Amino acid sequence: MSNFNFADRIKTLEPSTIREMLKAPSGPDSISFSAGNPSPLTFPASKMAEFAADIFRDDYATALQYGITEGYAPLRQAVEERYRKHAIGSENDELIITSGAQQAIDLSIKVLVNEGDTILCESPSFIGALNCFRSYNTRLVGIPVDKDGMDIDALEYALVNEPNVRIIYTIPTFHNPCGSTMSLERRTRLIELAQKYDVYIIEDSPYFELRYSGEDLPTLKSMDTGGRVIFAGSFSKVIAPGIRIGYVSAHRDIIARMTIAKQVSDVHTNLFFQILVERYLSNGLLDDHIRECCDLYKQKRDRMLSAMEKHMSDKVSWNSPGGGLFIWAELPDGYDGQTLCNLLRERQIICVPGNTFNVDKMQTSCGFRLNFSLPSDEQIDRGIATIGEVLSEYVVM
Amino acid sequence: MSNFNFADRIKTLEPSTIREMLKAPSGPDSISFSAGNPSPLTFPASKMAEFAADIFRDDYATALQYGITEGYAPLRQAVEERYRKHAIGSENDELIITSGAQQAIDLSIKVLVNEGDTILCESPSFIGALNCFRSYNTRLVGIPVDKDGMDIDALEYALVNEPNVRIIYTIPTFHNPCGSTMSLERRTRLIELAQKYDVYIIEDSPYFELRYSGEDLPTLKSMDTGGRVIFAGSFSKVIAPGIRIGYVSAHRDIIARMTIAKQVSDVHTNLFFQILVERYLSNGLLDDHIRECCDLYKQKRDRMLSAMEKHMSDKVSWNSPGGGLFIWAELPDGYDGQTLCNLLRERQIICVPGNTFNVDKMQTSCGFRLNFSLPSDEQIDRGIATIGEVLSEYVVM
Repeated sequence: MSNFNFADRIKTLEPSTIREMLKAPSGPDSISFSAGNPSPLTFPASKMAEFAADIFRDDYATALQYGITEGYAPLRQAVEERYRKHAIGSENDELIITSGAQQAIDLSIKVLVNEGDTILCESPSFIGALNCFRSYNTRLVGIPVDKDGMDIDALEYALVNEPNVRIIYTIPTFHNPCGSTMSLERRTRLIELAQKYDVYIIEDSPYFELRYSGEDLPTLKSMDTGGRVIFAGSFSKVIAPGIRIGYVSAHRDIIARMTIAKQVSDVHTNLFFQILVERYLSNGLLDDHIRECCDLYKQKRDRMLSAMEKHMSDKVSWNSPGGGLFIWAELPDGYDGQTLCNLLRERQIICVPGNTFNVDKMQTSCGFRLNFSLPSDEQIDRGIATIGEVLSEYVVM
Repeated sequence: MSNFNFADRIKTLEPSTIREMLKAPSGPDSISFSAGNPSPLTFPASKMAEFAADIFRDDYATALQYGITEGYAPLRQAVEERYRKHAIGSENDELIITSGAQQAIDLSIKVLVNEGDTILCESPSFIGALNCFRSYNTRLVGIPVDKDGMDIDALEYALVNEPNVRIIYTIPTFHNPCGSTMSLERRTRLIELAQKYDVYIIEDSPYFELRYSGEDLPTLKSMDTGGRVIFAGSFSKVIAPGIRIGYVSAHRDIIARMTIAKQVSDVHTNLFFQILVERYLSNGLLDDHIRECCDLYKQKRDRMLSAMEKHMSDKVSWNSPGGGLFIWAELPDGYDGQTLCNLLRERQIICVPGNTFNVDKMQTSCGFRLNFSLPSDEQIDRGIATIGEVLSEYVVM
């Protein structure tokens, strides 16, 4: 044990279970459904290599020098133009470039939430966000989520009864880990409630362009007339995560504060790749590229759903996500996702148990999360078949 | 004015004056001595372009994918090997890669300092650090600094009299803005005091490899036996700042907490450039490159000092820095650096007034900071001559 006195905010914080799992050694035959990684098959490496060579030739003195905290101006403009139809970067807004959407979440909390204030969020939810909230010594209150997104009645109950609520955090489209998408009716009510109870909404939407079936719904950002929605976006899933390029759009007063907070956090985001992404966008390559990503991921999703249908339909239930990277499966009442995942690990199958994503990690969960973007077709077939075998031993009905 | 309720920590924080100055439009004839930027002439762009092309060919699936928060393992190892003689990454330590040294400072405060705790630092000091401390609602107490570094008697007085001191922040080598280097005797006393009063030291040392004259002194990190020094280093000044690659070395218990804090801040640092910097180091290119940087900067420092000798030696005094990027000049008693800088601006010369760097920004300063790394030789000659003219009108003795 450590003898160091750490700040209160950090004393009890633990690293992301999933990110620690990713570091664990695994045998050559092991199959991981645990990541949230995009497939490297989608990385547009050869195009990026061309742009990189160009930048080193014609713009290196800018790309390698300090830049402004707000981000590379042509990239900010290109992102605003691309997403204007979602009311991102609209009239009273500003948009800045962040070091991934994670930083957009972090900066939102830093500028809007005091220690002890309450944040309402879906439970289960994205661990990186939950741990970020914890790292500011905030109070988290989990709101249940079903196939149509956050339970809005439970949300209103919490808004009425919980003290000092400042933020509602939501992943409305292709939720992590649940795969669900918030219905239009719930989106409308969510915006009304934020206005009524004077709270902000963080709309975390790293997957919204990865739709494989169904119709797009409007972003919360585009439905908001009160300047209450902070939209966190990312190029991690549609270009590449290793470059750490995201963006955040919100009312300009909020962005002005976030810019100061970013300045003291990392000065600015890697400028070379900001320029590279700008060139990628300005050359009109992203739409075609996203179509290719969607073709690949749709095929993988459908393959996993078929395998699940074949091997486990009598033991677990699941959603059929319209997009994103995850399928959420649930065991029957009385069975535990953690126990299942422990059994799977003995068979070298790595899944993330649902309780990992809970606001209260002590609360058990009958769910587990399956990622379909990263495993190969063969791994999907073999892995799901193995899960089916383990389920037939574990779940005896 | 804004109607938004911001977090207490961020309500009164203002953006860095210098970084705002850099955004101000300036005429083609204006001369800036205000930046802290390295010269783009030093950027090893052609070598970096080669490594980048290699990475896009042979390692893109790693470089563009998510990485671990601690940083790219071969880079961590290469950095530790390079700096082991400074006791960086030594026995009980860990080293992680950060998004510039700014993030190393930010994470240190996040894990070690509660709101309301006290931080002692040189005044004047680096604005990015001061604003970072302010953004955590900490109490700042400034300690005077002279040509031999922080005033250690004043430091001890503060350690005895100020409540809840947690951190001493110092730039011991080629101080920003003062250019001074802490003497060996003061380094020894500083370490003793940190031990005696049970506080941590952040040794911020982005310039320590840029020495143009005099002898190297040991890092505080290498003199510390109590695990109290957190060393923040950076490749911004010796490779390029736009890539945002820094590192932090400290006792492994501290680094473990900083890793969790980094995970929720930006997940990890741009992985592509971590790999690129690792290749640059492993190919043994950095020492020669730093020698070239030093040759250029020594010539620029000496040129500026000669011009100052010629044009202003009867009006201001200054240090002769052994390295780094800055010369600190002081007006006679009763004259104000801010007034001088306002007069200079009318002549299109941009310098940073000393009060900008003060812990108490309302406190006036007779100093002003001159950067010699970025202006051309011609700009140094013409700019310093112009400052001499303005001084002969402003300072009448």
